[in-house]
Amino acid sequence: MPQKKLHWEDFEPGAVAVYGPRLVTREEIVAFAAEFDPQPMHLDEVAGSATLLGGLAASGWHACSLMMRLIADGFILNSASMGAPGVDEVNWHRPLRPGTRIRARATVLETRASNSKPTVGLIKFKFEMIDEADAVIMTQVNTLMMGRRVPGSSP
Amino acid sequence: MPQKKLHWEDFEPGAVAVYGPRLVTREEIVAFAAEFDPQPMHLDEVAGSATLLGGLAASGWHACSLMMRLIADGFILNSASMGAPGVDEVNWHRPLRPGTRIRARATVLETRASNSKPTVGLIKFKFEMIDEADAVIMTQVNTLMMGRRVPGSSP
Repeated sequence: MPQKKLHWEDFEPGAVAVYGPRLVTREEIVAFAAEFDPQPMHLDEVAGSATLLGGLAASGWHACSLMMRLIADGFILNSASMGAPGVDEVNWHRPLRPGTRIRARATVLETRASNSKPTVGLIKFKFEMIDEADAVIMTQVNTLMMGRRVPGSSP
Repeated sequence: MPQKKLHWEDFEPGAVAVYGPRLVTREEIVAFAAEFDPQPMHLDEVAGSATLLGGLAASGWHACSLMMRLIADGFILNSASMGAPGVDEVNWHRPLRPGTRIRARATVLETRASNSKPTVGLIKFKFEMIDEADAVIMTQVNTLMMGRRVPGSSP
């Protein structure tokens, strides 16, 4: 049964949803690093063990990209999302290791109408990447622009 | 002639360096999007033209990943970098289009010694992705941890 396409009005402050899981493999960690972030701790276990990460771990930008895919499949591709002007903050709390089964936990922090565009609303999210034990690997705060179902209505 | 490996002491507030260029192709924009951010504006010109981006443009996370590679090759792989705890902010100012020749402009905003680790210093950077005409595509503010040449000396 197809879900109704999500609009700005469907996001309530305090709402929480969890997307995934997705298994992160050693192969993809090393492939991403070789292309975008070829620092030793993202390419090799021995090199990684000599760093603050304490072993092979994914590039932080790989974690961000994996988060994007989790939330894209989770709700963005079924929404009136219009993208984002940027990212408020990213924090990497724990190494993302090969073999971790990641999920994305999305919390709606606040919503407001756009001042300039009556068809657009803004939704500020906290996105957390969590592992099998609910330990937090990464947090992001990120504001998405989202089409309104009823343009110009008061927020 | 090999360059001396960079340490925390080598970064002076106000210093600016530019790295690159790198040509960004349509093929890599679509490949990244298909893997991590399969929103229509990152996959297809026609779909993109109906969005705020006004045509096919790279995922913002692809821009971040390309920035990482520019600064890795530019200086990080030849430094005592110990990674970063996160990202202070990211702003996407202009669409990153196929065929753009990007560069990274790195500005040292401030440096300070770590309070807890005598062998580590912190360097707060502004990283800008610029195009052939020096137009700014993306900005990041990002604090790196960097090994000190002389551990424990006063900042």
